[in-house]
Amino acid sequence: MRVVVPFGGRTPKTRLAPFFDADERREFAVAMLRDVLDAVRAADGDPTVVADAPVSVDAPVTVDDRPLTEVVGDELGGDDPVAVVMADLALATPTALARLFETDADVVAAPGLGGGTNALVVRHSDFSVDYHGASILDHRRIARDAGCSFAEVDSMRLAVDVDEPTDLVEVLVHGEGRVREWLVDAGVRLEGGSGRVEAVRERR
Amino acid sequence: MRVVVPFGGRTPKTRLAPFFDADERREFAVAMLRDVLDAVRAADGDPTVVADAPVSVDAPVTVDDRPLTEVVGDELGGDDPVAVVMADLALATPTALARLFETDADVVAAPGLGGGTNALVVRHSDFSVDYHGASILDHRRIARDAGCSFAEVDSMRLAVDVDEPTDLVEVLVHGEGRVREWLVDAGVRLEGGSGRVEAVRERR
Repeated sequence: MRVVVPFGGRTPKTRLAPFFDADERREFAVAMLRDVLDAVRAADGDPTVVADAPVSVDAPVTVDDRPLTEVVGDELGGDDPVAVVMADLALATPTALARLFETDADVVAAPGLGGGTNALVVRHSDFSVDYHGASILDHRRIARDAGCSFAEVDSMRLAVDVDEPTDLVEVLVHGEGRVREWLVDAGVRLEGGSGRVEAVRERR
Repeated sequence: MRVVVPFGGRTPKTRLAPFFDADERREFAVAMLRDVLDAVRAADGDPTVVADAPVSVDAPVTVDDRPLTEVVGDELGGDDPVAVVMADLALATPTALARLFETDADVVAAPGLGGGTNALVVRHSDFSVDYHGASILDHRRIARDAGCSFAEVDSMRLAVDVDEPTDLVEVLVHGEGRVREWLVDAGVRLEGGSGRVEAVRERR
């Protein structure tokens, strides 16, 4: 299946500024993208990256700096199924992506925490995307209005996109790829207290 | 399968104080417990509640105010499989719980966000629990040290436990039971901006 991976590479992951400077955030974002591309290929997907600035990865890259909804919208509407997988799904595994790709419906969505849509499979030419706000609600409605069958994949690994410092906890606990290694090399580790576990960075 | 549902009913959900007063938080916590009990039964589980204070629900209740690790520990070690499902999994569906119950391993865990363990199935008498800190890491280690096979269920619906105001967004977007209805009746609704969606409460 053709898999579009949108990547915002200009000023990525600004909410991680308490942990990383701008160069590090860019490096971290590219490491996540590379892990996602590996997982997509291992799940028999054929990835292409659409980025708002050039990026060097082992996949075809198209540079397009329009808003996400427009960029993804242009990829839909054809006869073949298309998947859209966000580049910051640092916990995505081939198994989780295979569940997404193999779920049978006109439109299959993996919801993200906070109302987002972290991944989609679109098999119907009348479906369109809208990534503003609580996009999973919009995608349910758009599918219904277009007469498309709609299914959701219940996956924590696809629900976590890495934006905030608390998301780093998930990568340290569940990550398996180069992103986890990158964090450990950067001195990020778990700190437990009596309450919830946190990610902290040791400056070296 | 026997399913133990621990319930902290004395001063539940204090982190939701920006939204609800103490009586409302108690009512909300009991509504979540009831939804979880319904989902457990619909997944062919046989639930019993272990609570730190009396609570009136449609299931047997044992009152035991010791720490969670001790209370759950006493339920393990027998010959029959036992499941442990937290009472604040407001998104849990029969389908998600059936995946947990039917996964084949000596110990099956559903990780919670932040390193927790939101649900467990234990089929081996040498396994024990430790709910302090990043418990999923401890449970992986305890299973390995005891020579138990260990599997994790990848489920967003089991990963979200409702503790913080941001978790209310998940209930509004994905909830299906009386908890969602309770929130709507209390005037809690989604508010979208240009960024991430939030839950807000209208005072009436």
